[in-house]
Amino acid sequence: MNNFEFQNPTKIIFGKGTIAKLSENLYKGEKIMMTYGGGSIKKNGVYDQVKKALEGYDVTEFGGIEPNPDFDTLMKAVKICRQEGIGFLLAVGGGSVIDGTKFIAAAVEYKGDEWEILTKKKVANECLPLASVLTMPATGSEMNPNAVISRRSTKEKFDFGSPKVYPVFSILDPEVVYSIPKRQKANGLADSFIHVIEQYLTDEINTPIQDRWAEGVMKTIIETAPKVLVDKPDYDSCANYMWSATCALNMFISPGVNQDWSTHMIGHELTAICGLDHGVTLSIVLPGTMQIMRKEKKTKLLMYAKNVFGITQGSEDEIIDKVIVATEDFFKSLGIKTRLSDYNAGEEVVNEIYNRFVKRGWNIGEHGIVTPEKVKAILTSRL
Amino acid sequence: MNNFEFQNPTKIIFGKGTIAKLSENLYKGEKIMMTYGGGSIKKNGVYDQVKKALEGYDVTEFGGIEPNPDFDTLMKAVKICRQEGIGFLLAVGGGSVIDGTKFIAAAVEYKGDEWEILTKKKVANECLPLASVLTMPATGSEMNPNAVISRRSTKEKFDFGSPKVYPVFSILDPEVVYSIPKRQKANGLADSFIHVIEQYLTDEINTPIQDRWAEGVMKTIIETAPKVLVDKPDYDSCANYMWSATCALNMFISPGVNQDWSTHMIGHELTAICGLDHGVTLSIVLPGTMQIMRKEKKTKLLMYAKNVFGITQGSEDEIIDKVIVATEDFFKSLGIKTRLSDYNAGEEVVNEIYNRFVKRGWNIGEHGIVTPEKVKAILTSRL
Repeated sequence: MNNFEFQNPTKIIFGKGTIAKLSENLYKGEKIMMTYGGGSIKKNGVYDQVKKALEGYDVTEFGGIEPNPDFDTLMKAVKICRQEGIGFLLAVGGGSVIDGTKFIAAAVEYKGDEWEILTKKKVANECLPLASVLTMPATGSEMNPNAVISRRSTKEKFDFGSPKVYPVFSILDPEVVYSIPKRQKANGLADSFIHVIEQYLTDEINTPIQDRWAEGVMKTIIETAPKVLVDKPDYDSCANYMWSATCALNMFISPGVNQDWSTHMIGHELTAICGLDHGVTLSIVLPGTMQIMRKEKKTKLLMYAKNVFGITQGSEDEIIDKVIVATEDFFKSLGIKTRLSDYNAGEEVVNEIYNRFVKRGWNIGEHGIVTPEKVKAILTSRL
Repeated sequence: MNNFEFQNPTKIIFGKGTIAKLSENLYKGEKIMMTYGGGSIKKNGVYDQVKKALEGYDVTEFGGIEPNPDFDTLMKAVKICRQEGIGFLLAVGGGSVIDGTKFIAAAVEYKGDEWEILTKKKVANECLPLASVLTMPATGSEMNPNAVISRRSTKEKFDFGSPKVYPVFSILDPEVVYSIPKRQKANGLADSFIHVIEQYLTDEINTPIQDRWAEGVMKTIIETAPKVLVDKPDYDSCANYMWSATCALNMFISPGVNQDWSTHMIGHELTAICGLDHGVTLSIVLPGTMQIMRKEKKTKLLMYAKNVFGITQGSEDEIIDKVIVATEDFFKSLGIKTRLSDYNAGEEVVNEIYNRFVKRGWNIGEHGIVTPEKVKAILTSRL
């Protein structure tokens, strides 16, 4: 096990009817900016529940944060925060809204070009406190210090993280899952699954608790997925899906292990260049990462095959072949198409991403083993 | 899944050589009381490492906190804290020292009889901040808000908990395990295992992540135990043991599940009356709890048999019989004797505990199903 430091101070308020607990958890006396997305919260009742809980507070609304939240959109919110002296941010939405709100929190007091928060991984000395009401389980942003921000004007997408942008609290009411469209649930399930695998499928360094916990989340996502994707999912399945998504990326499974975020980093480029959904990009890339890096990840691939999919028959190579197919089949079972050609993306996209990685000098994955050449091979295998 | 609230703000600093990180994590400018136990830290090098890291700080030492920390001992430290204006507590020890230090933190500003902290579960409005350097993995106290305090003058032992006594940070260097005597390691392994089972072996309410994580910790403890109990354990086994003990009781496995702390509550009485080691009392009681409550816990007992011990053959009753034996055999494999008669405790002890539970009106376990009569039956089955 590697040495590690771990701290996750976010308070989770989980369960039916918990949006009503918003008021008792908010800081008193601060001007609040309530952020949200395209307005789905006005259709599913969440907006009304939140507004009711916020009665008596001084609230400025900022809607319209798009999926893959855009730097230019968020900078409008930053300006309003500065003008109005906002003291607390309340994100009501999914990962994009929460990520965008983390950027706002980090940018308001930032001195300099705010894009540096992404490119230089710097935040202001004082970040605004933020909280969230989660409406879409997927990214785990409700209980972690990370955010991914896009800039459409330059077709770029970068992440940043800081302990200063952990949500103070997050409200997770699984009943919000009832009204989420199937495509978004599928993306959320795929995203959560791949968050786990990025913290698991590396080299084996004797971390049995972390490995078993990762496998436990993946098995739960696999068995919960078909129950969640139906039109009227039961409450417990929604709750297990929601808690899986949070536990997939709140660092409970990753202290002391090596991590490999190359599937995400390649996927971000596909979103930036082709506009594909985040969960879709990961489902396209991951089977390629497993295939191209199969030697380096052999021990963990065999462990994953046995403990998550129960695949034990055959030679080691056959087992690895089978588990790559099983993984891709899982994404297909969610209704996600898993080839670049399914989305009219061809070699020109592969070359563009390869060139970007070369230009940035990026060697990614555990120990930097995923070179630009490997990235090209991974994507080429997914044409 | 039940509704729940979860927050665990403790920072964990884990790994080889991490005691040297003490200084950078301490509050500056506060007078520190360093608490410890019977002096083993002066033999194993921890005391010297801590003192070196504390150079330049104003430190008062308070040693002599005994196993099952005693109210009267701790009140001496409380008086010193009040007299000297101590502003920060640093516990250097195992669960007893950390628990005792939590009591000191909760008592210094308490107005009234400090024993009420245990009997009325009240703490001061302002508790002193505390941190720990863990020297004995067992109780999980390094990353939870709970403490158990004894009062030898009345032969009582009670617990309390408050979010105000979470350690600010805890340093976990697995190398401290090298010098722990075998009996203490055995007790720590048993204690950790039973912490998990108290949060797991209740009723099945569709909480697959929590269940799988609990099973993952128990399996890790079972497979790590023989590697840790040897004279010269390897580093990774010590690290896995240490992280198991923390994860056994930092609430990562228990959000939204029902819990049953009856084995602990009965065990506390055995310590209070007979002076037995905490881990020993739990190893005595648990097989009785499983036996007497086997109907109420049937679903989870079968899940536990299959997923932790791989027992699937036979009728349901046979499987449960087998897993109770397997559990007791695990404790015996640690070198712990598991019958009351092994410790010269007989029916008079059973009756004394029964009378205490009747007098206190205690119905314990999940949903209060462990009545005083059940407690008597559990203990009688362990004579």
